[in-house]
Amino acid sequence: MSAGPEIERLIQLLSKLPGLGPRSARRAALHLVKKRDLLMAPLAAALQAAMDTITVCRVCGNLDSKNPCTVCSDPRRDPGIIVVVADVADLWALERAKAVNARYHVLGGTLSPLDGVGPDDLAIAPLVTRAHDPAVTEVILALNATVDGQTTAHYVTDLLGDAGVKVTGLAHGVPVGGELDYLDEGTLTTAIRSRTSMG
Amino acid sequence: MSAGPEIERLIQLLSKLPGLGPRSARRAALHLVKKRDLLMAPLAAALQAAMDTITVCRVCGNLDSKNPCTVCSDPRRDPGIIVVVADVADLWALERAKAVNARYHVLGGTLSPLDGVGPDDLAIAPLVTRAHDPAVTEVILALNATVDGQTTAHYVTDLLGDAGVKVTGLAHGVPVGGELDYLDEGTLTTAIRSRTSMG
Repeated sequence: MSAGPEIERLIQLLSKLPGLGPRSARRAALHLVKKRDLLMAPLAAALQAAMDTITVCRVCGNLDSKNPCTVCSDPRRDPGIIVVVADVADLWALERAKAVNARYHVLGGTLSPLDGVGPDDLAIAPLVTRAHDPAVTEVILALNATVDGQTTAHYVTDLLGDAGVKVTGLAHGVPVGGELDYLDEGTLTTAIRSRTSMG
Repeated sequence: MSAGPEIERLIQLLSKLPGLGPRSARRAALHLVKKRDLLMAPLAAALQAAMDTITVCRVCGNLDSKNPCTVCSDPRRDPGIIVVVADVADLWALERAKAVNARYHVLGGTLSPLDGVGPDDLAIAPLVTRAHDPAVTEVILALNATVDGQTTAHYVTDLLGDAGVKVTGLAHGVPVGGELDYLDEGTLTTAIRSRTSMG
């Protein structure tokens, strides 16, 4: 240990961030110590501010310093559509893409019997309650196109059967910018089957 | 902006760390907010502790919470050898490897006329002063095998000419575990020229 326990502790914590291993955590710690005023002090303050303010939105499960969150309290959002996502990261991805001007519902994961994740571990019951609101006309299931994601989508679709809403899922097909040569057979078959009219 | 200014600020600062881009900074911020007690609070505290304690060692330029640093104040280190490195990261790398049981001198960079880095921008004068200490017998120049590193090594060697110390540099050759097939011609030529007796 050549740099004292404080730096070792900082390296150890940084290496727990996704995307940083032990080696890059060391580089990051060194970078922070060298840029004490420009980066380290602001980062410490930002972490403290985030800790003091960020809560889980009681309506949709988003993370925000407002509660209900910025999205839920935005009057320009279509109140008739709920977009169901597995994780806050998915919500952020859809917001970055400006894919839809609606509200969200974060499940907190997908059903996964192998990992012991059942319906009671996800925010499915609150979703059913929200879907029964007469203002809601459509629930879009924006879940991953994986086995767990699609299992969850079917399970939620069944539960929403008597809520009087239209339940839809994301379209499958060739990603925009994607090259056919690199796509898997399942995607190609789906893209052919779900082909659209060009005219 | 779907997550409030506090998270956006945190993402922006995290994305300035080496090894984290905008996308991975977003993932890291989300991970931090989700692990508030396990990771976010300890990281905020560790940053504050590092800010409060870490200083530049007045002898060698290492970063540590002690001053002089742990290495400089370690009585088991050979006082006769100074290992010259460009950066604190290089010092840490040598310490991790337990490559040498001596003291260090951090130059703070290498001479680089193109980038406007001259001798006065580096801790070269303090090194010459240290090298004149009668206890010092050898200065090992552990600088990168790049043009800038080797230019700096030659410059420092000239300045140490009348200090009465042996000036040495790192050996060049095949890295341990390296495959000849993947090595550049310069390394291979050097490795042949500096070949050692096997007997």
